[in-house]
Amino acid sequence: MSIEENIRKVTPYTPGEQPQKKVIKLNTNECPYPPSPEVVRALSETDWDRLRLYPDPACEQLVSAIAKHYGVGSAQTFVGVGSDDVLSMCFLTFFAGNKPVFFPDITYSFYDVWADVYRIPYETKPLNGDFRINAEDYYEANGGVVIANPNAPTGIAESLGFIKDILEHNTDSVVIVDEAYIDFGGDSALRLIDQYENLVVVRTMSKSRALAGMRVGYCFASEQLIKYLNDVKYSVNSYTMNMPGLIAGKAAIEDTDYFHDIVGRVKKTREWTSGELKALGFTFNESQTNFIFAKPPAPYAASEIFDKLIQNGIYVRYFKKPRIDGYLRISIGTDDEMQTFINKLKEIML
Amino acid sequence: MSIEENIRKVTPYTPGEQPQKKVIKLNTNECPYPPSPEVVRALSETDWDRLRLYPDPACEQLVSAIAKHYGVGSAQTFVGVGSDDVLSMCFLTFFAGNKPVFFPDITYSFYDVWADVYRIPYETKPLNGDFRINAEDYYEANGGVVIANPNAPTGIAESLGFIKDILEHNTDSVVIVDEAYIDFGGDSALRLIDQYENLVVVRTMSKSRALAGMRVGYCFASEQLIKYLNDVKYSVNSYTMNMPGLIAGKAAIEDTDYFHDIVGRVKKTREWTSGELKALGFTFNESQTNFIFAKPPAPYAASEIFDKLIQNGIYVRYFKKPRIDGYLRISIGTDDEMQTFINKLKEIML
Repeated sequence: MSIEENIRKVTPYTPGEQPQKKVIKLNTNECPYPPSPEVVRALSETDWDRLRLYPDPACEQLVSAIAKHYGVGSAQTFVGVGSDDVLSMCFLTFFAGNKPVFFPDITYSFYDVWADVYRIPYETKPLNGDFRINAEDYYEANGGVVIANPNAPTGIAESLGFIKDILEHNTDSVVIVDEAYIDFGGDSALRLIDQYENLVVVRTMSKSRALAGMRVGYCFASEQLIKYLNDVKYSVNSYTMNMPGLIAGKAAIEDTDYFHDIVGRVKKTREWTSGELKALGFTFNESQTNFIFAKPPAPYAASEIFDKLIQNGIYVRYFKKPRIDGYLRISIGTDDEMQTFINKLKEIML
Repeated sequence: MSIEENIRKVTPYTPGEQPQKKVIKLNTNECPYPPSPEVVRALSETDWDRLRLYPDPACEQLVSAIAKHYGVGSAQTFVGVGSDDVLSMCFLTFFAGNKPVFFPDITYSFYDVWADVYRIPYETKPLNGDFRINAEDYYEANGGVVIANPNAPTGIAESLGFIKDILEHNTDSVVIVDEAYIDFGGDSALRLIDQYENLVVVRTMSKSRALAGMRVGYCFASEQLIKYLNDVKYSVNSYTMNMPGLIAGKAAIEDTDYFHDIVGRVKKTREWTSGELKALGFTFNESQTNFIFAKPPAPYAASEIFDKLIQNGIYVRYFKKPRIDGYLRISIGTDDEMQTFINKLKEIML
């Protein structure tokens, strides 16, 4: 059948497993704590009869709550169905040229998938042996740059000086800084949006605000870039955010105390887990995120530990990819979950 | 700044206004009745703490509930964030060839917007003087066909024989039949998916299931086409549907009695409204949808009536476009709303 000729064929991104049975789930960097009680209250008080009406296509209340929280303008703020939707729209909007877009070889593994689906030429730039990004690799002419900071799955944050250097060497292309994990460590580039017209800073409520199930992401940039982004959004789907997403996102961003509380708890558990993993001989860079990307000591293979953990009802993430197939990415759970995880590791490594 | 060169510039779709004040809203074809009590119950009983976890990327429970309801296979069913998301993914997936995609000149005004944003060549085929589609216009070689049936904003349904004719003359391209309004009239092409490998039938819960605010759309096609569609979806956003969308969609599709009840009420009100409009001298084809696309009698201009209705707190839709700028698209509201609308019309046309 020759309709095949008209079909866009792609190799999609593979998300981490979402097992339906009761397990210890340390594989998709979710928050181990529930969303803010204010989110639960706002949803519980919602008049669901209003669902018969379309949601506000401009997402005005959510956008202005986010803008207010970060002290930027509403016209510098964009929201989407998780940061994946925001990033997808950014790729489609800002990378429409012919030159290749640059990003690291080891980074969020969705970047090359978006490049493929939108037929965007790209080149990956190898991280160095310590999994750090070489700024000079991004000095050449390009069609755009994407830097996850802190990077995933390495968990390493580059400095704000590094980000500025990238921005200054790329005045002709849009530089996306994907800050999905910034609430757990590193310095945000958000303050730079007034200074650099080529900067887009992307955030998510999936990790530090415990709203993975609601799909709320956002980004900041100059008013001009946000306008272009909105034009594309309105050309793809007028109403990307549904009513519950708008309501929950607003309540989540407004509860700063709860946010600081759960982020603080995750960081504390991360420090404890880091100590335990080191004691077991794992090697890793200090994590600036809500996960630890660690290499087990010889003779233990990451893949083998991964399999044995699953047999014990503990899911971590393992990437069967060059350079990182010796590592495990371990999301930070509750203290109890991490204690169980460490205990199982000890049994496995006996 | 030469980042402009890399930017995709588009003219976006303009959705109907969503006025925040209390008005009679007959402009975006929403359902005048609330969603099923089962939807409200399911949402009220939801444990919102679960929002910390990602939703099921495969949307299995929703997909299988929809498949079961229509008696098709889950592997023949796809869901998205409203039918706009489904259609957008269809355009991206199925129209990746070089030949132009065909659709009517007067139809859902998002089709050319998707074609533009995804750089898909297209040609519009003029409806005839009665706003009917000429099947022969779609016999030429093309990169795909899109037919809204019933068509919008005309409200006219073509027969199943007509759809079969289009399918049989287009075995080399995907034919999308957009059935957003099929629950209000016309014969669905759904039963043809086993017979025609080039057919995609798109539906929405925004109109007949009163879930516009939740953004739930779906489509049916051969397993092979649905697989390609899922590959693209997983290349754009792993988790397009959030948890409330999955829950509400399932509850809505399972409450068949309520669905028949509200659709029946809308149709009854449509018949009454049609009679009143005719008595006022409006001309229009019998509507097979939840709106009436009607031309006011001379000397009244559609644009003038539109403005005067807004001044009276009544919003209908007016398209300032060739061939249809003499018409108003009037969504069917409650009996009371339509009575008020007709009364105001009488005042305006005095």
